[in-house]
Amino acid sequence: MKEFYMQLALNEAWKYQFLTYPNPAVGCVILDKNEKILAIKAHEKAGLAHAELNAISYAFKKLKPEISLPKEANALHDFICKNHQNMFKGAIAFVTLEPCSHQGKTPPCAKLFSELGFKKIFISVKDENDIAKGGGDFLRKHGIEVEFGILEKEGKDLLKPFLKWQKGQFKLFKLAISMSGSPLGKIVSNELSRTYAHKIRSVIDLLVVGGETIRIDKPTLDARLCQGKAPDLCILSRNKLESFDQNIPLFKIPNRNIYTEIPEKAKFIMYEGGENFLKNFKNEMDLFLIFQSSILNNKKNVTIPLNLKPLYKNFLGSDTYGIYESE
Amino acid sequence: MKEFYMQLALNEAWKYQFLTYPNPAVGCVILDKNEKILAIKAHEKAGLAHAELNAISYAFKKLKPEISLPKEANALHDFICKNHQNMFKGAIAFVTLEPCSHQGKTPPCAKLFSELGFKKIFISVKDENDIAKGGGDFLRKHGIEVEFGILEKEGKDLLKPFLKWQKGQFKLFKLAISMSGSPLGKIVSNELSRTYAHKIRSVIDLLVVGGETIRIDKPTLDARLCQGKAPDLCILSRNKLESFDQNIPLFKIPNRNIYTEIPEKAKFIMYEGGENFLKNFKNEMDLFLIFQSSILNNKKNVTIPLNLKPLYKNFLGSDTYGIYESE
Repeated sequence: MKEFYMQLALNEAWKYQFLTYPNPAVGCVILDKNEKILAIKAHEKAGLAHAELNAISYAFKKLKPEISLPKEANALHDFICKNHQNMFKGAIAFVTLEPCSHQGKTPPCAKLFSELGFKKIFISVKDENDIAKGGGDFLRKHGIEVEFGILEKEGKDLLKPFLKWQKGQFKLFKLAISMSGSPLGKIVSNELSRTYAHKIRSVIDLLVVGGETIRIDKPTLDARLCQGKAPDLCILSRNKLESFDQNIPLFKIPNRNIYTEIPEKAKFIMYEGGENFLKNFKNEMDLFLIFQSSILNNKKNVTIPLNLKPLYKNFLGSDTYGIYESE
Repeated sequence: MKEFYMQLALNEAWKYQFLTYPNPAVGCVILDKNEKILAIKAHEKAGLAHAELNAISYAFKKLKPEISLPKEANALHDFICKNHQNMFKGAIAFVTLEPCSHQGKTPPCAKLFSELGFKKIFISVKDENDIAKGGGDFLRKHGIEVEFGILEKEGKDLLKPFLKWQKGQFKLFKLAISMSGSPLGKIVSNELSRTYAHKIRSVIDLLVVGGETIRIDKPTLDARLCQGKAPDLCILSRNKLESFDQNIPLFKIPNRNIYTEIPEKAKFIMYEGGENFLKNFKNEMDLFLIFQSSILNNKKNVTIPLNLKPLYKNFLGSDTYGIYESE
């Protein structure tokens, strides 16, 4: 069953993939001493609780619904350490990445497990980060069993975006197509898919689009579906910026920087476009995020040959989406 | 969490959707008295154990690996009733369909739960079948808590094929397309997808294909990927059967009946074809089974407008597949 529980942790983490930028996506499942599932949680956003603390606090609330917990991560960590009443004695955790052993914005997760009396921690991937690594050793020194390598390949897939943006630049191509393979039409994917895309827009450093998208769709390119910050833009076009109709909504966003080439400081960059944009930039992409609806229509399909290997696939309502590498 | 466990039972049952013909697809999850997951199992094929017995025997093997169990369903049922040593005392089950209360090919599942001392049974859908119904009442009379209606809509979706073929005829259209929406090419979906399709072929009453498929693909239309029985065929074509090249492999299958119109006795009928076949028959289909690869290619897409509503979607390796109603 250890793979089953690790898969639950991985699936939960993937739901927040990209949204934790600049942090890695991490998931955590907690079982009590009798192996009852207490929590399946993930790190959801930089600045919020790590996956481990998020799962522990969820479990705490479930076991002691009468106690209200502080919201802020540091206060939450302290409160749980003082008020756990041994409810996690003998508990088991499944974490997709080795728990951190350093004091960052929040206290170390390895220390939290040990203070609460966890019995065993299953880990998918060892943390190679010089600052955060060593959580496994810390746990073992404190008498907690540690087992590494559960679904390690899947765990490494989950970390791919993080490892890219941490070392330099991470480029993601977003495409939305119908079941019949067509990207044409103003709205292709459903609201859940578009909300996920807007959440990504709200955390990236730069959104890259082509002149064709701007002229045809006259888009806003903001993050309104999640009430997030509209991203800075880079418009790649043979035409000058001044030649576009300045009444197109994307030009009306306050405090938006609009570039015509990609600034070096941008580390997480999303490209959005259709067939031509895909054709021009597919070879420089790290990953592809493809939303596909459940609608067969009579529009022209994308006919750029591209063999994609899914790292992860899931559903958002009637849409399918996948995060792919090109082969 | 009750929805979480019922969803696990539903997902497991969907994996065997169509393959249980003429029985319904049913899934069952078992938790011990401390709510640890002991088994996630389904009814896999007519003649084999019901989902409940399958899950209970899996849990039994896990708890007592030293005891070897009989294989045949009746003997298995008896053996477990005599040798359970109260290992299921206080256990909980989640079943997608009300456990049967009648002696069919196998003894009633409701009686099994009560003999083993289960505490509570969560059920998605009430069984309306005159012969099998009444399991919930039986359980309550024997002091077991019963809660109906957990993910009931999802449970009803799971039963749709069964309710159709039970009342008359169930027609399923199978389509395989690339991510760019094209059905063209001899092999479109991966081996896992094709194996599932072959498993379905091995249980259906009739496979319906068009003359175009036969002339272009020269197919065998058997169930070799699962070592199953090749289905009887109906070839719908303006041309006479004799006009086809009799060396095409499908004509070489021994004991295969080949019809040119659909015989009334056929209750579970699968249609396989491409764009034209879909166009001609989409309006008489009950459900659509669509496999979609992760490959963008430069072939012509299906351009028949069709709004599909997924009852279920999952992945088979890098392929996606869905079971859809048309809206």
